[in-house]
Amino acid sequence: MEGFRVLEIKKSVFENNDREADKLRQELKKEKTFLLNLMSSPGSGKTTTLKATIAALKDEMRIGVMEADIDSDVDAHTIAETGAKVIQLHTGGMCHLDAGMTKQGLEGLGTENIDFAILENVGNLVCPAEFDTGAVKNAMILSVPEGHDKPLKYPLMFSICDVLLVNKIDVMPYFDFDLEKCREYVKKLNPDITIIPISARTGEGIDRWADWLRTQVAEWNK
Amino acid sequence: MEGFRVLEIKKSVFENNDREADKLRQELKKEKTFLLNLMSSPGSGKTTTLKATIAALKDEMRIGVMEADIDSDVDAHTIAETGAKVIQLHTGGMCHLDAGMTKQGLEGLGTENIDFAILENVGNLVCPAEFDTGAVKNAMILSVPEGHDKPLKYPLMFSICDVLLVNKIDVMPYFDFDLEKCREYVKKLNPDITIIPISARTGEGIDRWADWLRTQVAEWNK
Repeated sequence: MEGFRVLEIKKSVFENNDREADKLRQELKKEKTFLLNLMSSPGSGKTTTLKATIAALKDEMRIGVMEADIDSDVDAHTIAETGAKVIQLHTGGMCHLDAGMTKQGLEGLGTENIDFAILENVGNLVCPAEFDTGAVKNAMILSVPEGHDKPLKYPLMFSICDVLLVNKIDVMPYFDFDLEKCREYVKKLNPDITIIPISARTGEGIDRWADWLRTQVAEWNK
Repeated sequence: MEGFRVLEIKKSVFENNDREADKLRQELKKEKTFLLNLMSSPGSGKTTTLKATIAALKDEMRIGVMEADIDSDVDAHTIAETGAKVIQLHTGGMCHLDAGMTKQGLEGLGTENIDFAILENVGNLVCPAEFDTGAVKNAMILSVPEGHDKPLKYPLMFSICDVLLVNKIDVMPYFDFDLEKCREYVKKLNPDITIIPISARTGEGIDRWADWLRTQVAEWNK
């Protein structure tokens, strides 16, 4: 086995998820740990983006990753190779994580020596949008092959995110993806969102994304 | 407005979804209506595949489509242009359809004059796999850009489907997608599944897919 453990997380028993999420954020603030909740469809490149993100930031901050999956370990293996601290969370069939489940994951990961914790949420544009995980910021990835109409179809997800990464821009010539239309749809739902086009594979745009993260982490630790 | 109506479907009240699903299949058998449940991630090409499917089969059978979405109408507009009978189902935030919800959709669509009904389920590889909709067969689409490791991460979805369409094979040269590895992962979960590589955009493989559907519809009406 590589350097990570697998945690079977339990359904939360809290009645008020929003309250639990706020409490978790207060704890993270005290510990000076910034938590990012990363969401997307299956296959839009969350893990590849994480690898590029870790490579860009690992010399500046101590990074910890929680890989949430229904029941596989593939992503945790990939992230363990980067040298970042990683834990695999199994949701036991559940399609999202709430604050109580995220807290279990953070306890499993151990946040004392982590500056920047990332939750790679279950690949799903519906359910994860409905639950505040306690993260400081919400990020989502939309990849070019998925199409620019996705904000129209999954509006809640695009509404609750602070930043949208438009990934796989290297394959733009082979798809009918209209970045301007995408931007227009997204901004109508969420005027304050930051949109960063990237290619996790070629590295394009990763510097801008890393800068955005640096600013957020610094802001959180003020 | 184009030729479709929008139905806000209600949460089902039935305790035993499997029993409701079996009842629905019996009714469909009596009416000689074949129901296909089509599932996939967001953006893997369900609607484009449906358009190609309708074009291939509309002269042989009367086709009706139920477009399930959280709350948009984009797909129903696209399908209405094909001339097929279509109804838009709004799930009110719900990430899947069960048999009771599918029954509401079929009643809204009207099945008396439909030989082949298709439910385009909510774009999601998790929740829709957990509920028998009452469909005669389950189909799913995995698109090349999503990656060949998806069966490892969403095993239930791949286990419950009768047929897997591997879509967007026209962009295979631009992605690291290993069709043989994909086939191996899928067959380990589900040895009886039929796997058909297609490109809904170029039409490649649609003839084999249409043949598979012809056989299933004929079998159902025996």
